[in-house]
Amino acid sequence: MYIVIVGAGDIGSPLLEIATAGGNEVVAIERDEERAERASRQYDCLVINDDATSKDTLEDAGADRADALISTTDQDATNIMVCLLAQELEVPDIVSVVHNPEHMNVFRQIGVNTMQNPQRLIAEYLYRAVKRPSIVDFMRIGDQAEVFEITVTPGAPIAGKTLQEANTEGLIGGQTLIVAIERNGEGDPITPRGNTRIEADDLLTVYSGEGATPEVTDIFGHSEDHN
Amino acid sequence: MYIVIVGAGDIGSPLLEIATAGGNEVVAIERDEERAERASRQYDCLVINDDATSKDTLEDAGADRADALISTTDQDATNIMVCLLAQELEVPDIVSVVHNPEHMNVFRQIGVNTMQNPQRLIAEYLYRAVKRPSIVDFMRIGDQAEVFEITVTPGAPIAGKTLQEANTEGLIGGQTLIVAIERNGEGDPITPRGNTRIEADDLLTVYSGEGATPEVTDIFGHSEDHN
Amino acid sequence: MYIVIVGAGDIGSPLLEIATAGGNEVVAIERDEERAERASRQYDCLVINDDATSKDTLEDAGADRADALISTTDQDATNIMVCLLAQELEVPDIVSVVHNPEHMNVFRQIGVNTMQNPQRLIAEYLYRAVKRPSIVDFMRIGDQAEVFEITVTPGAPIAGKTLQEANTEGLIGGQTLIVAIERNGEGDPITPRGNTRIEADDLLTVYSGEGATPEVTDIFGHSEDHN
Amino acid sequence: MYIVIVGAGDIGSPLLEIATAGGNEVVAIERDEERAERASRQYDCLVINDDATSKDTLEDAGADRADALISTTDQDATNIMVCLLAQELEVPDIVSVVHNPEHMNVFRQIGVNTMQNPQRLIAEYLYRAVKRPSIVDFMRIGDQAEVFEITVTPGAPIAGKTLQEANTEGLIGGQTLIVAIERNGEGDPITPRGNTRIEADDLLTVYSGEGATPEVTDIFGHSEDHN
Amino acid sequence: MYIVIVGAGDIGSPLLEIATAGGNEVVAIERDEERAERASRQYDCLVINDDATSKDTLEDAGADRADALISTTDQDATNIMVCLLAQELEVPDIVSVVHNPEHMNVFRQIGVNTMQNPQRLIAEYLYRAVKRPSIVDFMRIGDQAEVFEITVTPGAPIAGKTLQEANTEGLIGGQTLIVAIERNGEGDPITPRGNTRIEADDLLTVYSGEGATPEVTDIFGHSEDHN
Amino acid sequence: MYIVIVGAGDIGSPLLEIATAGGNEVVAIERDEERAERASRQYDCLVINDDATSKDTLEDAGADRADALISTTDQDATNIMVCLLAQELEVPDIVSVVHNPEHMNVFRQIGVNTMQNPQRLIAEYLYRAVKRPSIVDFMRIGDQAEVFEITVTPGAPIAGKTLQEANTEGLIGGQTLIVAIERNGEGDPITPRGNTRIEADDLLTVYSGEGATPEVTDIFGHSEDHN
Amino acid sequence: MYIVIVGAGDIGSPLLEIATAGGNEVVAIERDEERAERASRQYDCLVINDDATSKDTLEDAGADRADALISTTDQDATNIMVCLLAQELEVPDIVSVVHNPEHMNVFRQIGVNTMQNPQRLIAEYLYRAVKRPSIVDFMRIGDQAEVFEITVTPGAPIAGKTLQEANTEGLIGGQTLIVAIERNGEGDPITPRGNTRIEADDLLTVYSGEGATPEVTDIFGHSEDHN
Amino acid sequence: MYIVIVGAGDIGSPLLEIATAGGNEVVAIERDEERAERASRQYDCLVINDDATSKDTLEDAGADRADALISTTDQDATNIMVCLLAQELEVPDIVSVVHNPEHMNVFRQIGVNTMQNPQRLIAEYLYRAVKRPSIVDFMRIGDQAEVFEITVTPGAPIAGKTLQEANTEGLIGGQTLIVAIERNGEGDPITPRGNTRIEADDLLTVYSGEGATPEVTDIFGHSEDHN
Repeated sequence: MYIVIVGAGDIGSPLLEIATAGGNEVVAIERDEERAERASRQYDCLVINDDATSKDTLEDAGADRADALISTTDQDATNIMVCLLAQELEVPDIVSVVHNPEHMNVFRQIGVNTMQNPQRLIAEYLYRAVKRPSIVDFMRIGDQAEVFEITVTPGAPIAGKTLQEANTEGLIGGQTLIVAIERNGEGDPITPRGNTRIEADDLLTVYSGEGATPEVTDIFGHSEDHN
Repeated sequence: MYIVIVGAGDIGSPLLEIATAGGNEVVAIERDEERAERASRQYDCLVINDDATSKDTLEDAGADRADALISTTDQDATNIMVCLLAQELEVPDIVSVVHNPEHMNVFRQIGVNTMQNPQRLIAEYLYRAVKRPSIVDFMRIGDQAEVFEITVTPGAPIAGKTLQEANTEGLIGGQTLIVAIERNGEGDPITPRGNTRIEADDLLTVYSGEGATPEVTDIFGHSEDHN
Repeated sequence: MYIVIVGAGDIGSPLLEIATAGGNEVVAIERDEERAERASRQYDCLVINDDATSKDTLEDAGADRADALISTTDQDATNIMVCLLAQELEVPDIVSVVHNPEHMNVFRQIGVNTMQNPQRLIAEYLYRAVKRPSIVDFMRIGDQAEVFEITVTPGAPIAGKTLQEANTEGLIGGQTLIVAIERNGEGDPITPRGNTRIEADDLLTVYSGEGATPEVTDIFGHSEDHN
Repeated sequence: MYIVIVGAGDIGSPLLEIATAGGNEVVAIERDEERAERASRQYDCLVINDDATSKDTLEDAGADRADALISTTDQDATNIMVCLLAQELEVPDIVSVVHNPEHMNVFRQIGVNTMQNPQRLIAEYLYRAVKRPSIVDFMRIGDQAEVFEITVTPGAPIAGKTLQEANTEGLIGGQTLIVAIERNGEGDPITPRGNTRIEADDLLTVYSGEGATPEVTDIFGHSEDHN
Repeated sequence: MYIVIVGAGDIGSPLLEIATAGGNEVVAIERDEERAERASRQYDCLVINDDATSKDTLEDAGADRADALISTTDQDATNIMVCLLAQELEVPDIVSVVHNPEHMNVFRQIGVNTMQNPQRLIAEYLYRAVKRPSIVDFMRIGDQAEVFEITVTPGAPIAGKTLQEANTEGLIGGQTLIVAIERNGEGDPITPRGNTRIEADDLLTVYSGEGATPEVTDIFGHSEDHN
Repeated sequence: MYIVIVGAGDIGSPLLEIATAGGNEVVAIERDEERAERASRQYDCLVINDDATSKDTLEDAGADRADALISTTDQDATNIMVCLLAQELEVPDIVSVVHNPEHMNVFRQIGVNTMQNPQRLIAEYLYRAVKRPSIVDFMRIGDQAEVFEITVTPGAPIAGKTLQEANTEGLIGGQTLIVAIERNGEGDPITPRGNTRIEADDLLTVYSGEGATPEVTDIFGHSEDHN
Repeated sequence: MYIVIVGAGDIGSPLLEIATAGGNEVVAIERDEERAERASRQYDCLVINDDATSKDTLEDAGADRADALISTTDQDATNIMVCLLAQELEVPDIVSVVHNPEHMNVFRQIGVNTMQNPQRLIAEYLYRAVKRPSIVDFMRIGDQAEVFEITVTPGAPIAGKTLQEANTEGLIGGQTLIVAIERNGEGDPITPRGNTRIEADDLLTVYSGEGATPEVTDIFGHSEDHN
Repeated sequence: MYIVIVGAGDIGSPLLEIATAGGNEVVAIERDEERAERASRQYDCLVINDDATSKDTLEDAGADRADALISTTDQDATNIMVCLLAQELEVPDIVSVVHNPEHMNVFRQIGVNTMQNPQRLIAEYLYRAVKRPSIVDFMRIGDQAEVFEITVTPGAPIAGKTLQEANTEGLIGGQTLIVAIERNGEGDPITPRGNTRIEADDLLTVYSGEGATPEVTDIFGHSEDHN
């Protein structure tokens, strides 16, 4: 895949790392000379040190034959200009970071995929780390439901029980589903069945229709979570 | 919950919004005058315009009776100093952003919860948006497995089939599990059973032991995903 | 007419002067504090010292009920963001300065009236002042034709002749038309007829199908023009 | 023609482009190193990176044998010093941009041709684009009269009529004159005669003794113009 | 006398001191806020903190009824613009500092009195202090001649002699004239006559047609002067 | 003569010009790189680009064998440190500019020759140019007396008279002495005698015990001088 | 005691704290506004925000009746100017920091007490902390001898012995003297006699004619010191 | 000894000088390019121009095999990050400057030797120089006691007496001990005995249990000391 990445700053840099590591043909455009040089040293890609709001620059980066363009600068106005020019050059897939939520609609209007306010995503993780320290990672499903990863503490109500037993005892309600189990720090999770026994220190992937509320996390033995 | 948030910049600002909206008692510390004023205007919290690496400032912020402190400045060195002072003041829960991966261990050593390189998380989302445009959201489980949200296209192999039929026909392997179904844009997902029929435009939450590979996403009708 | 003007810099300032003098209701938006204050002192209009790429600011300026918005900042990217937001707010008439000719198409694509590269217009006037010092003002018609203002020198071939005589003598070809005559510095021009006599020092408005070439300007007595 | 251009900024740059494209021998003087280098790369002319208020610099630029000098810096004081030195070197034609209208007289006093407040010219165009959106281009003649370009809309009163008919019906008054007609986007305009028929979408060059008022523009079918 | 002084910097400040001490009505114009405030505190005059190249500012300073204007800024271009505007306002006496000797002629051309390169004057004094340490003060007359002040050392050839004796003995040639004698540090000099006796420590004002050469200064006892 | 000059700024530069033109061996010390380079290009002397308050630098400049050192920086504190170090290196002649009159005594105390507030000297010249425009140059003698150069106007009382006649008629009092006469712009002045006739346009060097008051200058025909 | 302290920076600030705590009448002079304000808030003294190289400022600070003045700015040139002015005002005691060792002599020459290169003192302490970690504090006597504080480790040769025993056994040579003993962290040291017994954990003040060499420190049980 | 020194600023520079002069293998890390270059020129050590809070940099500096690391930057947060990384690399001896006293405990907590607020040490010396000008050097022992160096003045009570006589006469109390005597400016001090006679101009090292109070210093003849 041929990907043009605009901006080699805080977000653009790890993106360059991921995209080059993924075996793609990557070209970066960065206006700041110092950043451009750093990116050129660190990643296996061509880095163009120029202004991406110029069509010449985009053409130099091969945008007219690229499969995708990702705009990551910290200025929404710059990102939108880049996306509009990319549309003119008929880049099939155009994605942009959007910093100000008010601008989301403008990007949508012109038909650009967006990633809204990335800093807010981080903020949510930090907040969760404090409010629900037991939750290792999580993903929202709709308004309330969540999939989350949680460790089973030694004295947890569910520790030592099979899923069937846990169901029978009402520990796991109809809204809750244990999706996968990671044990002993091994990378490949077990797909749980009725007779699979939950052990202390298991890292569970859990789906809960009502979210990771204290009622739900309690059965995994976490009383430190806050309401 | 009483939370002290250090830094009201790119990450601190949305965190202040989330934390105040969550009904917590929040105090922010921000060194930059302009940022401090803006935070003070926008969020319902006390904002102290001072240097958080001074114990006096932390005490002014009530850190000695806070439930948690989250350090979000863009300097790892500042964050670690703040965390160490917070430990002296015996803040129960201390979380910090860490920008340089090399510093992760140092934070762990002194016993601080961390959120590593938040910009990389964003980069992964952007990359995914280009490589697997069908994926709405996702979460990694271990090394390979993933939980992800995906829309069913009208002509997809699975569209119009019950889960049982899909299983029987081998569309869904042993490593794949349909965890939840959002239909008609309603917030409450359906917990699927054997006779639940998948419809076009359903937004599915799927667990796949081998990750969201094209083989897996194909059955939901997405041929635009790249390898 | 209710007009929102974005930018109170080199172009925005005289525009504010013209627009307020024209009896319109004018609101200016300028990000720079110093410029905003100056505009506020000098022109009879409300000046909002804020970032116009925020919808809140545009709404504060009453853009949602404005008849027109003119974006005059020196950043094309900023201008396009402002125009897109103005479209969202359904401003009927949106005009923007465009500095980089490559961006013209992007503005057109989204349906915004533009004024391309204003500095080039000035450059053309300066160049003309040197190449055809006899030309007071001019306007291009198509590729070659021009309407221009020119003074008749005392010894010019046409001086003292009626239009009819000039035509008969072949001084004025079929491609040339004397449109109007300003005499004695009076503001109201005379519409010339066949028997109108051209006098020295008359300021003529002339249409020439082949442009203001030396052949054409010679009959008004200007040998100083360059090829 | 040998032309010395002082300043390679916003106005100087397009002037360099026009002047070199016109086949003149051009020398630019620009004090700022970065601008000087850019100009040197982009235009086919000698660029001297020095201070033009030094006689040595002007002599290096060959001002003593130049046909003309155009001063385009954004400082009136610098422009006047340059013009005075150019007079000492007996440059035949000296033209300068003037930014502050109060300085117009000073330039005139010392005998320098000027182009007053170029930004105001742009502002007038922008204002006109909003007030009279039907007007494509225009030129003032005296205090009130104007020559302007306007498109004929399909249902306009004049559409489909010959000039004679339009005159007879009183559509075109004694103060109005149709000077030229551009049809089908062709560069060469037609010189209209009595039996020339005006068609929809014709781009007319019109002279109006009372200016482009709504009364005048109405007959070309533009009701969107404002008073 | 009503004097407008433009610039309150290194040269303008002592000028304000001298001019106000001399009982004149003085108005200063200084663009820099800090300097303007300082001048306002220190000198008994009105200080206008504005740009003197604006006619409004000059009129605010009463330039139209002033007897004289002195322009002292460190930019020749600014000084010339100020002087031209002062001419428009018909200030009877206009004087300006000129920093670049090449600009002298330009100022003269427009009829402004100038003081060329003041720093050079200082440099000459410093140089003289090292080359002819015996000379207290001096003034050049034509190319070679000088009037200078010099102290008589105790053992000098002329010490103890009357002027007549000194003439007779050939100590004072036809080109040299003792103009005045200051004795005992008293402010009023003595006008010397033939029988006036020169004493050691007298401070003499001397005219020498060949300048203050060592041959001339030797008779006053200064062997430390250099060639 | 071997002279070290510290500072190559406004005062140092013309001093370098004078000192090198005078055939001396000159070494300059200038801390600012740009100034040092310029001085090196323009003057025939060694320029050391370093801090002169370091003894090493002074020794590199050969201060230990120099005949004189002149300190011209715009910081009195720097000048005094340089002078003290020069004393340590036993430079025979040390001269310094002093900017703040309060510091004069400090320099005197440590035995350094000074040139006080050079800007004031310039200010006096400017002031005189306005108050006594007839005076070409002047030098103060004691508190009141002055030697000055003045041109004789055509209708002046003294024009056409011999000195004797002028004395007899009381035009020249006992306090006034005509020291020298420059005629026809020739460099060598005439030493006047009793029968020397003063002509219009003569440039006279005059000594006046009461200074160049209007009473004194009137006889040379200058009624434009102010009181 | 009336003390004027010039400079409220890194060194001046703790000096203000010590001097005010010591019950002296203190006046500080600090040029930087921010520093001056901070000092004014923190210390019980008058702070003058002005340039101390002006005699007026020093007089405002009461230097003419002060017992002492300490100059602590980070510019030697500024310090020397301040000291010279303080001498003029006849301050009895004048002390200054000196940063460049080359300037030491200059300060001595004019009779000012100095503290040379304070940063070097700190560097020596840091170096000692690494080379002789057993040494708590130390003071050099002459070229080699030292007084130092050292802790006795539990298994040290001298632990448990009286001084007499230690002498007899040759542990303490003729060049070494135990001056004082701090025990149990009490502030008042014991003056040791022959029968005083050294205990483990005692903090000894020791004089050694040959310095704190490993041979000497070994008897106190510190084998970690480096050569 | 292999020593890594972080920071080559005010404190780091003299430390580099001492450490290299002491024959150690020294590597410096300095982030600022100019400082790094200067250090590289002046000291015999490797200087790495990079950020020491990166583990890579520390490893490049050989921190993993160094005997000691000294952190001297002026930011406590930077110092603590460096120290924590040095602990990870298991540097045996880690020492750091600490600027803010509030941070002392944090450094202690993580087990790093510190040098608190070095500027305060300097301030104490300056204060002492003014309050007890007789004291040449001093060291605090516990809360009150001091060892200090003092010169004996010619007329001092103790001058000319043996120590025994001084004891007998009660000049030296039980709390005071004369530890060493430097005579004639020789570097090797004499260890005093009962019959050693104190002479004027001797430089004594004295221990006093009550500190260097005027009562104690009086016997050495210093009445200029203040209370």
